[in-house]
Amino acid sequence: MNEKELRAELATSIRLLEYMGLIDFSGHVSVRLPKEDTLLINSWGGSRCSLGPDDIVRAGMNGESLDPGKEVPSEIFIHTSIYRKRPDVQAISHLHPPITTALSIAGKPYVPVMHHGAIFGTGVPVHDNCGHVNSKAKGDVLAELLADHRALIMRGHGAVVVAESIRGVFFGSVYLEDNAAKLAEAWKMGEPIPLREDECAASAGIWRQNQFNKIWNYYQEKSGIYFQ
Amino acid sequence: MNEKELRAELATSIRLLEYMGLIDFSGHVSVRLPKEDTLLINSWGGSRCSLGPDDIVRAGMNGESLDPGKEVPSEIFIHTSIYRKRPDVQAISHLHPPITTALSIAGKPYVPVMHHGAIFGTGVPVHDNCGHVNSKAKGDVLAELLADHRALIMRGHGAVVVAESIRGVFFGSVYLEDNAAKLAEAWKMGEPIPLREDECAASAGIWRQNQFNKIWNYYQEKSGIYFQ
Amino acid sequence: MNEKELRAELATSIRLLEYMGLIDFSGHVSVRLPKEDTLLINSWGGSRCSLGPDDIVRAGMNGESLDPGKEVPSEIFIHTSIYRKRPDVQAISHLHPPITTALSIAGKPYVPVMHHGAIFGTGVPVHDNCGHVNSKAKGDVLAELLADHRALIMRGHGAVVVAESIRGVFFGSVYLEDNAAKLAEAWKMGEPIPLREDECAASAGIWRQNQFNKIWNYYQEKSGIYFQ
Amino acid sequence: MNEKELRAELATSIRLLEYMGLIDFSGHVSVRLPKEDTLLINSWGGSRCSLGPDDIVRAGMNGESLDPGKEVPSEIFIHTSIYRKRPDVQAISHLHPPITTALSIAGKPYVPVMHHGAIFGTGVPVHDNCGHVNSKAKGDVLAELLADHRALIMRGHGAVVVAESIRGVFFGSVYLEDNAAKLAEAWKMGEPIPLREDECAASAGIWRQNQFNKIWNYYQEKSGIYFQ
Repeated sequence: MNEKELRAELATSIRLLEYMGLIDFSGHVSVRLPKEDTLLINSWGGSRCSLGPDDIVRAGMNGESLDPGKEVPSEIFIHTSIYRKRPDVQAISHLHPPITTALSIAGKPYVPVMHHGAIFGTGVPVHDNCGHVNSKAKGDVLAELLADHRALIMRGHGAVVVAESIRGVFFGSVYLEDNAAKLAEAWKMGEPIPLREDECAASAGIWRQNQFNKIWNYYQEKSGIYFQ
Repeated sequence: MNEKELRAELATSIRLLEYMGLIDFSGHVSVRLPKEDTLLINSWGGSRCSLGPDDIVRAGMNGESLDPGKEVPSEIFIHTSIYRKRPDVQAISHLHPPITTALSIAGKPYVPVMHHGAIFGTGVPVHDNCGHVNSKAKGDVLAELLADHRALIMRGHGAVVVAESIRGVFFGSVYLEDNAAKLAEAWKMGEPIPLREDECAASAGIWRQNQFNKIWNYYQEKSGIYFQ
Repeated sequence: MNEKELRAELATSIRLLEYMGLIDFSGHVSVRLPKEDTLLINSWGGSRCSLGPDDIVRAGMNGESLDPGKEVPSEIFIHTSIYRKRPDVQAISHLHPPITTALSIAGKPYVPVMHHGAIFGTGVPVHDNCGHVNSKAKGDVLAELLADHRALIMRGHGAVVVAESIRGVFFGSVYLEDNAAKLAEAWKMGEPIPLREDECAASAGIWRQNQFNKIWNYYQEKSGIYFQ
Repeated sequence: MNEKELRAELATSIRLLEYMGLIDFSGHVSVRLPKEDTLLINSWGGSRCSLGPDDIVRAGMNGESLDPGKEVPSEIFIHTSIYRKRPDVQAISHLHPPITTALSIAGKPYVPVMHHGAIFGTGVPVHDNCGHVNSKAKGDVLAELLADHRALIMRGHGAVVVAESIRGVFFGSVYLEDNAAKLAEAWKMGEPIPLREDECAASAGIWRQNQFNKIWNYYQEKSGIYFQ
């Protein structure tokens, strides 16, 4: 994808996550520009329920806006710190997913209980601080905690999902909350049954491009959100 | 019904189940073609929120597509194994119903607690594996577990409902989740009161064509989903 | 109101209750015709999400349709038995309210916990049988159980609300479920605090015509449901 | 803002709170007129789902309507008592937020568990009476209980939020319920982890104008509610 396509893809992902109630009025998604030490991210002010490709900003790896007049989100350090530490990561979402967040407030560990939850089989660490990640130092703490996992939770605040593409991040974001929803329901009724290791191993293969595309297309059709 | 009518009926049932949040982006419904060793099912790729009669595929009882260029769902073996074992079954749904699935994760047995839940009075077995049913061998295990019941649950994954017609499957699918919803609510508050045997016996008669039609028509009117 | 106005009012109440998720595809509301031994009720077949004044049937006090070709609901005996026993009652709803019903399945007594719940301060009896009330004998059992109260619950099935007018029934129906919703939420978290007697006494005055009209008008505006 | 602008702002806030399910058919929001012993509030009869600037009434600090023919809400004393006691307060909402209210019925203290919940770090007192606040004496009791806090809860009834502007009240109203939602979810699963003092201190700075505007604009865009 060229930059124009990446901007459309990024704007679409944010609008879809907003449509699904996962990003709230202030979350963000970024993508690393190929072969450049630069990222694209939605601007601080662009409304998550109406933004488009023009609300995407170029930013440097120190969190500075490269587009004069366009402000980056104050928590951009979540993104820059992770991109520096994880060369495999090409896209990152910062979500405010209600049930995933409630689980962290209840002190319940995040475990896979659903078929699709197997993509989080290595674990989802919880950051024990609800505060804004508005500095490089705070970003580095998160990146350290994330280690090689696909997601982390910020107790009383939200979550972060990483992947090798925007659609991968979208897929991971949807199933982070979907698995959390069933996990939480089970805690309300009793004690959840986590996936066994053999189940996690057998289900890990759903992390693949044709699944990313299928669910992406489905939500585009439902929401009518398209750019270009 | 001729095949053209069955295709429209099948597409309608899938769209209605999607409208009601029971099938997600990847469930499927099938119907057996009268007097043929063949079934109709929605294609792998047809989006559940927009598909129509043209997205229906003919498939053989070994799970192979009979329509060149149209792919069957990878879990078609759920359908073929059950049709082989249950000559009384003419239609099958594979759902992803959120609350029914959550009950299985909480390890709570599925019991009838609602008037309409009586249609599941013989029990709803739970398959203790969340994995995809993507082979004949796995399909046969499910069919064995289903035995003579009207539904089964796949822990951490979804459910299967069978009936003598597409409208019967729709009716069963709706009430599988409706009964689960009340059952789960009760577990969250305390201990559910299951239907007594006399209540199940007295209520079993709601499994009949005019009830199937009434709820089918109601949801068609609400959703505006019609074909032909 | 003359009969034409009552038909419009009755159809409106059913459509509003359907809009609010309280009546499902098969509930009903009736009103007694002034100075006649006759009632108006929605027909068996009229779809609750689209019916109008023409789907209202005249019925006699033995539950028989007086309009040739129009069928009454099979549970009309809920209405006829109560009208016979309660001359003060002019209108009745038979609802399928999800949370009120779940409370009965959890075996939790219905108590007022909300300001508006005070209208049920004398208690809401629970019928310990989920079955259809499709005979005079069964209707009489319900009427006996209802006694002088404003509502009763049928475990695993639904509820009945009575009042001196259609708008009173609408008001009572909305607050039966609203109070149940808060009661159930509290049971999920701990132990609910019921209203004290002094609170019930002080709040009973909200059962009055200008409150009925205010909420009726509000939901008409929200839903856009108007007849005549 | 001049009075015309304040009327538009006030009407917008009520319509947005109604859109979000926080105010029901009978809540109200008021604003103090600068340099006058007068307030603006929505009228008793103006429907919360359709009202506009013309449904705003001028009232005196004894709760009397100053606009002949326009009635003030019967609970206006919530507003007048607080304005008299708290010169810093310029705007007040009286909400019916479902989860905040359910927490009070469950007897669970309101504590901050979310980043944004830190704005209620000094505590949210609970009034142990569900009744209408329809007299100066009752209003004064509430004002006394509120003391220097930003919100209070009326058990089994609703809540009150105060701020230095209408947008501040909107922001506080949204996050009162948002924090309550996560708090309640956690109680349903186990025991919530409240914010630590250091977290509350670090997060208190989100109470500021640019945050008020961002969420206000977001919900205006989502709902399409604009005046003038």
